[in-house]
Amino acid sequence: MTQLESARMGRITPEMEQVARQENVDVDILVKRVAEGSIVIPRNVNRDLKEVRGIGRGLRTKVNANIGTSQDFCDVEEELNKLRAAVEAGADAVMDLSTGGDLGSIRQRILERCPVPLGTVPIYEAAVRVGSERGSITRMTAEDLLDVIERQAKQGVDFMTIHCGVTRETVERLRRQGRVADIVSRGGAFLVTWMLTNNRENPLYERYDDILAIAEKHDVTLSLGDGLRPGCLADATDRAQVQELIVLGELVRRARNAGVQVMVEGPGHVPLDQIAANIQLEKRLCEDAPFYVLGPIVTDVAPGYDHITSAIGGAIAASAGADFICYVTPTEHLGLPTPEDVREGVIAARIAGHAADIVKGIPNALEWDLEMARARKARDWSRQFDLAIDPERARRVRSQRASADEDVCSMCSEYCAMKIVEEALGGTSASCSV
Amino acid sequence: MTQLESARMGRITPEMEQVARQENVDVDILVKRVAEGSIVIPRNVNRDLKEVRGIGRGLRTKVNANIGTSQDFCDVEEELNKLRAAVEAGADAVMDLSTGGDLGSIRQRILERCPVPLGTVPIYEAAVRVGSERGSITRMTAEDLLDVIERQAKQGVDFMTIHCGVTRETVERLRRQGRVADIVSRGGAFLVTWMLTNNRENPLYERYDDILAIAEKHDVTLSLGDGLRPGCLADATDRAQVQELIVLGELVRRARNAGVQVMVEGPGHVPLDQIAANIQLEKRLCEDAPFYVLGPIVTDVAPGYDHITSAIGGAIAASAGADFICYVTPTEHLGLPTPEDVREGVIAARIAGHAADIVKGIPNALEWDLEMARARKARDWSRQFDLAIDPERARRVRSQRASADEDVCSMCSEYCAMKIVEEALGGTSASCSV
Repeated sequence: MTQLESARMGRITPEMEQVARQENVDVDILVKRVAEGSIVIPRNVNRDLKEVRGIGRGLRTKVNANIGTSQDFCDVEEELNKLRAAVEAGADAVMDLSTGGDLGSIRQRILERCPVPLGTVPIYEAAVRVGSERGSITRMTAEDLLDVIERQAKQGVDFMTIHCGVTRETVERLRRQGRVADIVSRGGAFLVTWMLTNNRENPLYERYDDILAIAEKHDVTLSLGDGLRPGCLADATDRAQVQELIVLGELVRRARNAGVQVMVEGPGHVPLDQIAANIQLEKRLCEDAPFYVLGPIVTDVAPGYDHITSAIGGAIAASAGADFICYVTPTEHLGLPTPEDVREGVIAARIAGHAADIVKGIPNALEWDLEMARARKARDWSRQFDLAIDPERARRVRSQRASADEDVCSMCSEYCAMKIVEEALGGTSASCSV
Repeated sequence: MTQLESARMGRITPEMEQVARQENVDVDILVKRVAEGSIVIPRNVNRDLKEVRGIGRGLRTKVNANIGTSQDFCDVEEELNKLRAAVEAGADAVMDLSTGGDLGSIRQRILERCPVPLGTVPIYEAAVRVGSERGSITRMTAEDLLDVIERQAKQGVDFMTIHCGVTRETVERLRRQGRVADIVSRGGAFLVTWMLTNNRENPLYERYDDILAIAEKHDVTLSLGDGLRPGCLADATDRAQVQELIVLGELVRRARNAGVQVMVEGPGHVPLDQIAANIQLEKRLCEDAPFYVLGPIVTDVAPGYDHITSAIGGAIAASAGADFICYVTPTEHLGLPTPEDVREGVIAARIAGHAADIVKGIPNALEWDLEMARARKARDWSRQFDLAIDPERARRVRSQRASADEDVCSMCSEYCAMKIVEEALGGTSASCSV
């Protein structure tokens, strides 16, 4: 039985109990939201998942880190290092997007070591296999796709990106639209190529009921991919993107009817002032399904700094209601990330998520900042490090630029405003008796 | 005559012409806005300023970089390296906040090498000098302050932060408020200490007319400092902060009446959902004076990453109408930044400003992104580097993670979505004939 089916029957699963504890929310509210579909708890029944995570309404904004080999960098040890970096930096979920090497065995090794939910994009494995065996991904069959989805489900994958919204209808809308960057989703690109070459409908759309049956059996959470997501600001929120979202909304309802947990993926490259509208649109069109955004990246011009462009977009998106942020690393648009890039990307996305959680009113979010403010005021450096989102980096930066006076920092030295005021006023703090 | 006085007489100065050209705006509109005070052009009449900048309504969001020695790190050569790093990274203005060493000679060397407007906080020099000569900054006199302001004005400083809003009234409001972090502005801390010890009104407030006379004579743009800016999220937008802003609004009008260009400084640490309100409040209370924000930082918990916390806040602030962003470096709250930190800080703030300029409708902002999107679609790497906000870094990241296929990048290698789609569709681009 899936988490969704259990919730509908009012059965509280151990996973729901764990999430309720982690999040400090009432388990009855959690069950209600899982039942209505506004919260998902990705956990494959075949998996020994150490740390479950809930994603959706009223919960802390979650962060996903993409790892995985490419044809150019195909070293499973490095990917395991990235996994470790991601988890240590606080990622709530990891996706294995490998396209180089023995994909099944790489996934197995990642699954064994990943304490948090693991996601994949099964069409990558199908495309890579068919490409190498038959010379072109256009020779892929629907059975190839379903076979990969089923094997990955049996292997224990907790959530899968399925690009079912790339249909003949949406591709026609894309053609009429005319875009600057066309398609930047790999899954979308594979499917459009296949559809145009074979003059057929998207097999993931045609065989959606079969996919739902597999997902229901193993409780794989479906993440409905946005194959037509905009790849530049100029293409954002266009008719092709919104058309696909309408289709995804219909597929959300069908998934829920089949007892399958489902979330929806979103852009991408979006100007700052269109982000909130994108969130609201998803929540309406997709009946409050959790929204999983990639970025959004708020400017195209900063390759090398896309962890920052996406932290800006991610914070705005999450504060407007996005539930799950896929990190973007500094290497985005330039190459495959290193473990250090992974770490930077996770921290930047966590900053975005936390800044949003404060204004979403998530339990204990603002309290964290309050504790830090008190430690800062008290110039309790050890406590500041303990509370820092990245204690190790905070400690390193301070020690590299140490002050002769351990009570302050080297920016202001003896002219530390907090210290001066404390000595002059004895503090005006609410906690002080003035 | 100041730029403001010239504009009121309808005289177009060479500086206005330069700004109009830089910004691609009509010079008559610019003159009108300088006359009404919604745009300032900081340029001291005594200064040989190579690149003037306009700050305010309808203009590109500008970025300031703070440099300067402290008691712990007092090496003028390193500060000159920071100046170079800031200017190379694209800072529109620089503030010398030195508090260590021979402040007059450090400032002179920076002034000689700084091609963009230079700002200072004169009370730092007054406090450091009085502290060393008389043992305590509380022995400072109003004449000491005016003397420093006048000497810096004669030396050529283009804009000065003056904390005139820290008055007995606002300090009383601060006391009644009760804060977690009290005062985090050094200028604010010096003044409150002085006021409480001497039981006197803020000399910068009492002698405001004298300050205006100096500023008018040399066309120093006043930047009205927010000595009571919040130092943590819990203190944001409180009665003390807003009370000070009301006083600053009154002082804006007095500055304009005296023919002095004026802008207003703002927070600081602010939760994401209070930022837009802060901008609107400033614009209303301060009669559309350009707003110069520090950050805002949207969470307190990320020391080591405050270039990112402030890029999030800066982008939201600028998109809501803030005109001038003071950068924050990764070293904020931990120590004095290095030249590399300066560079990171400037780029992060420029990303924030540019993301906002796109949605502000600033001329040519979105066009930059469009050019990048076209270069990316064409996989024209050389053009992408030329268009990158930091070409050197983009180039380095790509070369460190190079693909065997020069046409793509190592993330997707042969599975590059753009390339696949191009081969399948021949492009659906608006520019293509499909």
